[in-house]
Parts: sequence; structure tokens; C-alpha cells
Amino acid sequence: MAKQRIKKIAVLTGGGDCPGLNAVIRAVTKTAINRHKLDVWGVEDGYEGLIEDRIHPLSYNDVSNILTVGGTILGSSNTSNPFSYPVQSGKRVVNKDVSDDCIQNLEKRGIEALVCIGGDGTMCSAAAFAKKGLTIMGVPKTIDNDIWGTDITFGFNTAVTTATEAIDKVHTTASSHHRVMIVEVMGRYAGWIALHAGTAGGSDVILIPEIPYELDKIADFVRARSKKGKRFSIITVAEGAKPKGGKQVIFKKIKNSPDPVRLGGISFVLAEQIGQMTGLSCRAVNLGHVQRGGSPTPIDRVLGTNFGYHALELLMKGRVNRLVVWKDGKLDDVPLSRIAGKIKTVRKNDPLVAAAKAVGTSFGV
Amino acid sequence: MAKQRIKKIAVLTGGGDCPGLNAVIRAVTKTAINRHKLDVWGVEDGYEGLIEDRIHPLSYNDVSNILTVGGTILGSSNTSNPFSYPVQSGKRVVNKDVSDDCIQNLEKRGIEALVCIGGDGTMCSAAAFAKKGLTIMGVPKTIDNDIWGTDITFGFNTAVTTATEAIDKVHTTASSHHRVMIVEVMGRYAGWIALHAGTAGGSDVILIPEIPYELDKIADFVRARSKKGKRFSIITVAEGAKPKGGKQVIFKKIKNSPDPVRLGGISFVLAEQIGQMTGLSCRAVNLGHVQRGGSPTPIDRVLGTNFGYHALELLMKGRVNRLVVWKDGKLDDVPLSRIAGKIKTVRKNDPLVAAAKAVGTSFGV
Amino acid sequence: MAKQRIKKIAVLTGGGDCPGLNAVIRAVTKTAINRHKLDVWGVEDGYEGLIEDRIHPLSYNDVSNILTVGGTILGSSNTSNPFSYPVQSGKRVVNKDVSDDCIQNLEKRGIEALVCIGGDGTMCSAAAFAKKGLTIMGVPKTIDNDIWGTDITFGFNTAVTTATEAIDKVHTTASSHHRVMIVEVMGRYAGWIALHAGTAGGSDVILIPEIPYELDKIADFVRARSKKGKRFSIITVAEGAKPKGGKQVIFKKIKNSPDPVRLGGISFVLAEQIGQMTGLSCRAVNLGHVQRGGSPTPIDRVLGTNFGYHALELLMKGRVNRLVVWKDGKLDDVPLSRIAGKIKTVRKNDPLVAAAKAVGTSFGV
Amino acid sequence: MAKQRIKKIAVLTGGGDCPGLNAVIRAVTKTAINRHKLDVWGVEDGYEGLIEDRIHPLSYNDVSNILTVGGTILGSSNTSNPFSYPVQSGKRVVNKDVSDDCIQNLEKRGIEALVCIGGDGTMCSAAAFAKKGLTIMGVPKTIDNDIWGTDITFGFNTAVTTATEAIDKVHTTASSHHRVMIVEVMGRYAGWIALHAGTAGGSDVILIPEIPYELDKIADFVRARSKKGKRFSIITVAEGAKPKGGKQVIFKKIKNSPDPVRLGGISFVLAEQIGQMTGLSCRAVNLGHVQRGGSPTPIDRVLGTNFGYHALELLMKGRVNRLVVWKDGKLDDVPLSRIAGKIKTVRKNDPLVAAAKAVGTSFGV
Repeated sequence: MAKQRIKKIAVLTGGGDCPGLNAVIRAVTKTAINRHKLDVWGVEDGYEGLIEDRIHPLSYNDVSNILTVGGTILGSSNTSNPFSYPVQSGKRVVNKDVSDDCIQNLEKRGIEALVCIGGDGTMCSAAAFAKKGLTIMGVPKTIDNDIWGTDITFGFNTAVTTATEAIDKVHTTASSHHRVMIVEVMGRYAGWIALHAGTAGGSDVILIPEIPYELDKIADFVRARSKKGKRFSIITVAEGAKPKGGKQVIFKKIKNSPDPVRLGGISFVLAEQIGQMTGLSCRAVNLGHVQRGGSPTPIDRVLGTNFGYHALELLMKGRVNRLVVWKDGKLDDVPLSRIAGKIKTVRKNDPLVAAAKAVGTSFGV
Repeated sequence: MAKQRIKKIAVLTGGGDCPGLNAVIRAVTKTAINRHKLDVWGVEDGYEGLIEDRIHPLSYNDVSNILTVGGTILGSSNTSNPFSYPVQSGKRVVNKDVSDDCIQNLEKRGIEALVCIGGDGTMCSAAAFAKKGLTIMGVPKTIDNDIWGTDITFGFNTAVTTATEAIDKVHTTASSHHRVMIVEVMGRYAGWIALHAGTAGGSDVILIPEIPYELDKIADFVRARSKKGKRFSIITVAEGAKPKGGKQVIFKKIKNSPDPVRLGGISFVLAEQIGQMTGLSCRAVNLGHVQRGGSPTPIDRVLGTNFGYHALELLMKGRVNRLVVWKDGKLDDVPLSRIAGKIKTVRKNDPLVAAAKAVGTSFGV
Repeated sequence: MAKQRIKKIAVLTGGGDCPGLNAVIRAVTKTAINRHKLDVWGVEDGYEGLIEDRIHPLSYNDVSNILTVGGTILGSSNTSNPFSYPVQSGKRVVNKDVSDDCIQNLEKRGIEALVCIGGDGTMCSAAAFAKKGLTIMGVPKTIDNDIWGTDITFGFNTAVTTATEAIDKVHTTASSHHRVMIVEVMGRYAGWIALHAGTAGGSDVILIPEIPYELDKIADFVRARSKKGKRFSIITVAEGAKPKGGKQVIFKKIKNSPDPVRLGGISFVLAEQIGQMTGLSCRAVNLGHVQRGGSPTPIDRVLGTNFGYHALELLMKGRVNRLVVWKDGKLDDVPLSRIAGKIKTVRKNDPLVAAAKAVGTSFGV
Repeated sequence: MAKQRIKKIAVLTGGGDCPGLNAVIRAVTKTAINRHKLDVWGVEDGYEGLIEDRIHPLSYNDVSNILTVGGTILGSSNTSNPFSYPVQSGKRVVNKDVSDDCIQNLEKRGIEALVCIGGDGTMCSAAAFAKKGLTIMGVPKTIDNDIWGTDITFGFNTAVTTATEAIDKVHTTASSHHRVMIVEVMGRYAGWIALHAGTAGGSDVILIPEIPYELDKIADFVRARSKKGKRFSIITVAEGAKPKGGKQVIFKKIKNSPDPVRLGGISFVLAEQIGQMTGLSCRAVNLGHVQRGGSPTPIDRVLGTNFGYHALELLMKGRVNRLVVWKDGKLDDVPLSRIAGKIKTVRKNDPLVAAAKAVGTSFGV
């Protein structure tokens, strides 16, 4: 009976930065100490700290005053995979499975369960650890809101809020100067941020990866507005948006260029293209990493608190190797093994897509 | 068949101010014009304008650039009830049923359906109009989130965000001066704002109408924190919170006082009481109407857009005399007749109450 | 030559909470360590820690990541005066001069100079310490902006920003409901916050202590607006505003009242009075301590950094017992002995008063 | 005597978008109507509307409720110069002096004075109009704060606030991921925004056009921080920053590239360079036009109100053909003819540069 056995747990945060991570760490730690009298340990920098044995005790005071702080007090790493980790071998670097080392680093401290807070990549490794017998609780994390199995994730609302504020701001420039402003938001594979921030910001055009656009349609739409006396347009575009039949513009280095440059993002390409097609003045803004930062919104603090609390409740009931989720308006959970490799994208007939169209938004098709 | 008949609709906003009202007005109007080729009319100042025949056409341009603006472009009135309206009769004022006048004011313009955006009071009258044969669509509005039948209402997230920002701000004063800060938020009958903002702001104590508090328990809790070296505490209290066995402190005028004064709210009473019991320095802040104002958050803009769009979809399908709601994570609707007089309060075993307790929050019991 | 002697300094923060205190502490400490290779000590809770010998070393890391944080990492106390400090003497408490103990607590650690960050009260004691031979640098602190000798103080801009945001928010309620909204801001003796926030928020009426109001004039003004079709008004009032020939409404306990209540502030009194005189719906909001909190605005972070840096520069040049100030657009300093007991109030012919009147604002006269 | 003659004035806004423009328009119009009983006209889209005779009356109501709104209700144009304006001549476009047409468009309406709100370019034309006998009042406008003759301009504080909020946000990503974050802000010729926002945001490195950087120095500084355990750095860079002996990276189109791309800005170049030199993970964010938008901060609303009011006061006193300025802590004015072609840049020994260095900031030299 797992329920009675567990005395000591560890928590780690993996993958990209996300507002609300500290809310989860705090809820996990406080619930563990307050309600279940557990010892809690923190793993530094995601799986990297698990591999390198950087694990330290977390006290009640360590997690005080962190609820409102962005980022993660534990640190994170984007790429470390314990089942294929680059190790120096003679003169070469080879990828090795170091998962047994990880388990040993936990066992030698008597740690019996690991709470993994992270995205798709983190959960793949977590599921693999569960298969090897480690007791795991997963907490989904992504500002992109594209994790399968949960209706919503913490960090998403903060990112949408930051993006909406930026759209609100460029609105005044657009209308004062009769310009087309193109705001690029995160979302490589899923257009949730663009759809929500674009709708909240009253964008005239929203472009998302799930609905490939036609340049002609965008130009026609912008021109038609201009004819009706609306001398400006706001376009919100997800970084992963792509033309019909075309491919994504990847953020890449350009060889043979006089300077070591990169593309500024799809928004800059669109500004050039739409400017040429319509003769209107177009400007691009790529919000980038600003969307990952800042103090979490109340929604994300509450959701992070709920997730952290629920993870501990399930763990102590012996319902383990699950991902905590928010489904149909309430806390729930799904098996870790079922979510790996899946992604939740915007359906073409999503009700919000329909609502956005009804209020006059074009999706470039 | 209502579906084919409808060519002309009107929209009104009743009751207290609420961020997101304009998002609904905009979505109703744009969806009506864009998708259904309807004529749209706006009623001024809620039922008051319906009674006084102040009704004017709403164009596409009238609802442009209002998405981000708080309040309502139509105006509102708090108390007008067409079924019992104060009318001058000789030298006296008597309450009269003027609902037939209202219906006539719509009929003479050929308006066939009325979208009522409002709270409990507005919906009671709306249901009564429906009984009299008027075609009605209801859209729920309250910053308090206590309308029965819907999991969430627009305006609530904006109010919670404003309240949370205030709690975040007093945090620094509390910790620098080792004080007890008491922040009073709206919620006369339901503690949703206090519960969410209190949890998001990391409050040490949350007091809501649904869980009557014991003063001793609060004082003990604050003292215990002080002994553990936490020399400050944050208390979030709903305006309608009350002591166990006691009654609410009503915001009232005090007779026989040298000045024409009112109570500043329950927070000022608690500051006095807890200060006397613990000897700690206590300060109260009553946020008041600031919570009703401001630009709606992205959540509330999107929810308002969804509600307005959905109201029109249902109306045109002939599914009328319903209240549009958000239930179990999606758009839905309930009969208008079923919600009147009901209220959605916080259950003592609400998962968020449990989560808040798990991270160390006291509810004063 | 003080310049060569000084190796060790201490810093303390006295008086009420104020955004930007940490910016000064950080600038003092980093400048001292980086540029002048000094040892820096921090005194806990203002003069209280100096009296009670709670003084500890401050390292570079102690002041990292505090620039954006409201409040003071050193703590503060409002009332401690080392020259008249309540001490237990037998069964009674008597006020005693404990300033020699303070000096000794510094001397025994080899601390040669004290940077005092505080308001009027803190500077009075600082000047008295200087007279006794202690080397002092003063840094002015007040959200009220009423310290004599400096054009501006850190904290003021943050308070004005918070107050303006609140005025912006109640604007929507006022206009939607045709109400008179009365927003009370800090300023017991000086109306700087009310003047600046009132002007920035486009208030129709601004009431400040320096310009006693006439109730009739306010009521006339509000009524005249109503007649011109402006069916709402925003009144910004400083807590210390008072009627012509009358006295301030003090925030006091009311005896013989059924509940242990306090006045909610002058705004509640005005709401009652103006409501009765005009028949309009009036609502009051007293912002209170929210104005003292939160992350400092960029202006206040930069000003705090400038003040802390400048204090150290002057100290190391031997220009001591001075108050660092911002005067005529640049950093400057005045003798500590000259500012005590003075206060900088709004002149009736201040250019901003004239500008506010020109754009249509009434001062109730 | 201009003072007695003037009955009718016009106002125009030229150049790039800037928060606070509406505050000036409102103050000019309300002061003119309230205090001086003038007729006020608004010119559409800057000099373009003056040339094309798009000039309309401005009423009191036209400028109500615009104080808090970004952009300009009059519209603006970036490039129109009435003294060299592209005109179709046969098959070719030639630049022509159309200033007489402008003057005639004003004269035929009886407009006797023109208030020009704009930057360097707008003021050059304004000075030329003054030379031709038109009565002009200039109001300086630039988010860059680089107009000669005034210590500060409206719009600057809003831009600095937006930039500082972005720096605050990327801070969490930087520290969670041990990254170097490079935030690019506006400032092609002057580094004021970078200096102020960089200091307010606690940036480790600030790069401005006035202090050409050395890449080696930046890399050394970042590496040194890493060795001291500070595993992240924040770099704030003005768009016009350039390497010592090198030239600015211009935002340009790259020929022969597979896509019609532009550089994303100097920040992307630096991210590449510093990443290669240090082996650290670097990320760039170019804030772009977001800095020009949004509701003006209280400072900018008050400054705009002051400027508009003061322009009218001077005009009515006959002190014309002047630029209104803020100098040494108060309102003042300088001759229009003296400012043309000058620019106010950051001096290497500016006190804030010294303060920033003292608290540990590197300027890359």
C-alpha cells in the first residue's frame, strides 16, 4: 500500500520557463508538509540535477513568498533526457542511458516518489521512469496549452495576457498611422495563444498552424477593410503559422550573409509580403520570450496551486503514475503512459474559432 | 418558427457595472449583422430605457473599439423592475406593472427578440417577459460569480485580478512593518472573489459568507504565525463574511453620530477587533468599486465574446427563453425560468477550499 | 579627513512603507562595495534595531534581486525615536534618551557612518545624531512628496500610478451608472498625490488640504455637469482635505456605537453630503495602504538608485550630515539641520493647479 | 499685438506615434475654449491634412475621454514635408514647395495660429512656416527623449515603463534557464530608453549608441558573472547601439535570400555573437512598436497636459514661434529656430551612467 509507505518525495521542473511553476512547487511542498508530514526534496535544473545528483531538502520557508514569482526556484533544463544523455567516452561524446543513476540518487536518500512538472518531453521520460518502477506524479506545464489530456495548463493565461496587452498597445499605433500591425506570438504547433489573445485583442486577422493561410485572402481582407474606411488592421500570428501548401518559416541562421543574422520570425516575412501586395505600411513585432515571463496571473496561481495539491492527494491515495489534469471544469487525472507524443491542437470547428469568425475575424482562408 | 421570422433584435444591459459587458454587446451586434443580417437596436440604461422608450439602432461602427473598454456603452440601471415600477399617481408614488408598455415599445419598432445581459434581478424580469410571450435570450453577468447554472461569468476574472493585485501590493507593507493587513473584497452572499483572490494572493486567512468565522480562531492563527517568526499576516475578507452565530455587518449610516458617517466595511471592524485581541498593528483596505471597473481581462473578453455569439446562435435556432452558460468546460444553456431566485455559493468542501487549506490558509474556523 | 577614514557604514530605513526603499538600499550597498570597498551593515526595523542592537552585515548577494521588490528588506518601524524612547522603569514606562546606546552599538562594530533613509521624523532624529558627532547621510522618503528641500521623492510616482489606475477603473462605473465616484488618496497635509493622480485620471473635481473646499461649490459644479449632459463626475480627494473654515475629518473610533467602528475616511462623508445635496447616486472608495505597496515604477527605481549612489559619493567626499535631494532637474543636497519640521505643500498658484483648472477641473472653490 | 487678435487656432500632430499626444490635444483644446474662448480646429494626419485641406472643427466633447487613450485622435503622418512634397507632374513625381497652399488652407478659415505637436522633423517645417509669417507654437514629442532644449518629453516615461516591464519578465526566464537574455529597445541615435529601462530593470549590461561597445568586454563580463555563480545575464540594448569602430546594424532587407526577410535587429546579432564567444545560451527579444503604444503613464498625461496648457498661455501672451519645454524642473520655452537639426544624446559622464556603473552595470567598454 503506497499510501502508508511514502515518507519522502522529490520534485523537479523540466522544460521551458512557465509562469506558475513556483505555485506548483509551493503547493506540492506545503501540502506534503502540512497535510501528510512528508520530507520534501528539490531537484535542481530538471533531469540534469537528477543525473548529476544535485538534490537538496526543501523546507516550508524555502517555498514561502514564491507564489507570485515567475520562473522556477528549482531551475530547469530544456533538453536533458536521462534515457539518452550525452556522456564523454574517451575522446567522443556518446548518448547513454543514465536512468539507473537517477533512480539510485533518489534511493540513496530514501526518496520514494518523484513529482515531475513539465511538458511533453519531461512526461516521456517520466513515463519511462514509471515503467522502471519509480513512483511518479506528473503535472502538465506549457504556456502553449497543447498538452494532450488537459483542457488547460498553468502559464497559458499569463502568456495570453501578455500577448493581449501587446496587441492592445499596437492598436493605437495602427489606428494613428493607418498601418497594418503584425504581432507574432508563441505557438509552434498549436495556435491557442494566437486564438485567445487575437480574439481578446480584437484582431482583424488570426493565423494559426492548424489553419494554413492564403496570402491573397489576407491581402484581400485588409484591402476590403481599407475601402470601408478602416484604415488599419491588426494581425495576430502564431510563430508556427504557415501558408496553404507551404511550410513553416523556421527561425534560422542565414549562411553567406554579411552578418551572422537570423530571421526575426514569420511576422517579418508577412509584413514584407503584405506590404508589397497592398501598398500599405506594415510593421511586425515578435513578442518572443516576454510571453514566458512575469508574475503569473491569478488564474495561473490558482491552477498551479490546485495541480500541486491534487498531485499530492492522488499520490497519497496510491493513484500514481498519473498526470494531473483539468478536464470538463474540474480536477482529474490520466495515465502518464497515454499522453506521450500526443498534442492538443485547435480544431477548425472549435467554438472559439466560430465565435471569432462571427465577430468578423478572418483566419486567412 | 422563430428561426425564420426574426429580422430585428434589441439588446439591453441591466444591474451593476461589470467588465466584459461591451464584449457581449459587440459580439451580439456583430454576429447579428455579419452572420444573420439582422437589424440591431440598443436599449439605454437597462429596463429604464425600455420603459421610457429610449431605444436606438446599433450599427457595426457603434460597437467597434469597445471590446477593451470597461462599463457598458448602453448604460445601465440598478433597480428598475418593469413589473413594479414607481409611477407618480396624483400626489403619491405607486408601483405599477409597466411591462406592457415595454413590449409595445419593442413591437412598434418591429423588434422581435430581446437579449438581456444582467444578473439575478435582470433575469427575473426577463423570465417574466418570456412568460408574457416576448422572445428572450439571457446572458449572465456578475463579478461575484454567484449566478446559478453557470460555472463562470465574465467580469469575475477581472475583479479577481484587481483584488489579487491589491493583495500583492499590501504584502510589502505587511512584511516591512510586521502588520496584519485586512483586504475587503466584494461578495455579499458568495465568497468566490475572496476565495480566488485570497488563494492567488497567498493570503493567510480567507473569510467568506459561506463559512462563518470565529474571532478567536483568527486571533490564534495570527498569533501562532507571529511565534513562528512570520511577523505579518494577510487576511482577505468578503464584504458579506460574518461571525459564527452572528450577523453581517451592513454598510450603513450611523444615526446620532456627530458626522454623517458610514461604516467603512467589515474589514475596519475586524482590524479593530483583531488589533485589540493580539496587540498587533492591523490595517484595513476596502477595495470597493475599483473591482467593478477597468478594461476586462483577456478571459473576460473571450467569455463575453463567446456568450454574445452563442446567444445569437441559439436565438436563430429557435432555442429561446434560455440563459447562455459555461458549464463543464463548454458553452451550454439552461431555461430562464429555472434560475430565478437561486444563487451559487461556495461549498464548504469545494476543491479550492481544500487546496487552500492544504497550503496553510485558515478560514477562521 | 572623513574621506580616507571611512571603511564601514550602516544603513537603516525608518517610517512608513514606500516603494523604492530597496532600490536605495541596493544602490548604497553596491556602490559602497563596488566603488569604495566598504563594509556595509544593515540595521533592522529602523531606529528600533539601532536601539536594540539588531545590526548585521549586508553582502552583495543580500541586495541582489531586490530592485523590483516593494517594501524594505531591512524592515522599518514607524514611531521609534531614540531621543525619547519608552523604557520600563519599575512599574511604569518612561521615555528616555537612548541615543548614546545607539552610537555605542555602531562604534563597537567600527561603523563610522550611518545612511538614514526616511521621512521627516527619521530626519529629525538623524539631525540630532549628527549634532552628537555621528556621521550621517540622509535620503528622503515619502510617498506624499511633501519633504522640504527636494522637488521629488521616490515612492511618489508609484503611489500616483496606483491611484491613477484606480481612478481609471471607477471611470467606467461612473459613466455606465451616471454616478458621482469619490476616490480618496493619501495626503494628510499635502495634496500632491491627489493633484497629480487627479489630473492624470481626468478628475472633474480635486480636493486637497491646501485649498479648503466649499460643499456648495462642489454640488453646483456636479449639477452643472449633469445639466450639460455629463451625467457622471469623478472626484479625487486627499485624505486631509477639509471644508473652508472647517476641520479635517480624522479617521477615528466612534464611541457609543454598537460596533467598534471607524470612519471610512473623508470620501464617505463627502459621498453622503453630495448625495443629499444633489440627489445623485454617490459612491466612495478609499484606496488606503494599497498606495504604499507594489513594485516601484521605473521612475522610482531610477530615483532610488540615483539617491543611494549620490549619498555614497557625498559621504566619501566628506560632504556629510546632508540630505540628498533632486532639485531643479538634478541631484543635489541640503543640510540635514535645515529641513526638520518643514513641509512642502501645494501652492495655490502651482502651475499644475493652473493647468488643471484650464482643462476644466474644479478645486471646490 | 497677437494676443488680442487671436480668435481661431488649429492643432496638428506629426511624426511617429507617442503616448500622451491626446493629452496635449485635449489640454490645448480645453484651455483654448475654457480660458480664452477660442475656436479650435484639428488638422488630420499631420502636415498631410494641412496640404490636402483636411481640417475640421474640434469641440469640447471631441476631446473628452481621450486623456487615457494612446495614439492621436487627429491621425499622423511620418514623412510629409510641406516644403518638399511629392507631386505628380506629367508622368513624373517631383518634390514641390506646397507651404503656400497650407497657409492658404488656414487663412481661408480664419485660423491665425497653428499648434504643432511633433518631433525634430515636424519642428523643422514649423520653424520654416514661422519664417513665412505663420504664428506657430511647438510642442516637443518623442518617446526617445532626444529633442534638444527640453529635459524630458511625454511618451518617454510610457516607453521606459513598457521596456522595464519586459525586462522584468525576461528576468525569470534568464534566471530559471541560466541564460543570457538580450532585450532591444528603441533609440536609434540616443540611448535614453535603454539607459533608464536598463537601470530600472537591473540590467547587467546596457548598450547605447553614445558609448560604442567592445564585444570582448561584454563576453568577459558575462563570463565573469558566470564564474561568480551568477549563471544568467540581462543585456539591454538600444536599436542604434554599435561596436567600437564599427557601424550600426541597419534593419534591412536581405537580397538573394530565399525569403523576403529582414534582420530582426541588433539584439539577434548580439545573441549569435555572444553565444558563440561564451558558449552560453542566448536569446533576443526586440520590443519594437509595442513601446510606442498603450495608455500613457500618469507622468506623461500630466506632462502632456502641462505642455498643452503652457502652449496656449504663451500664445495668448504673444510669446510665439517657441517650443514649449520642461527645463530644470519647470515649464519653459525656447525659440523654434534654435532647436532644428540638434539632438540631445546621453553624455558619457551623465550622472545616471555613473550611478549605473556604481551598482555594477557594464556599458561594454
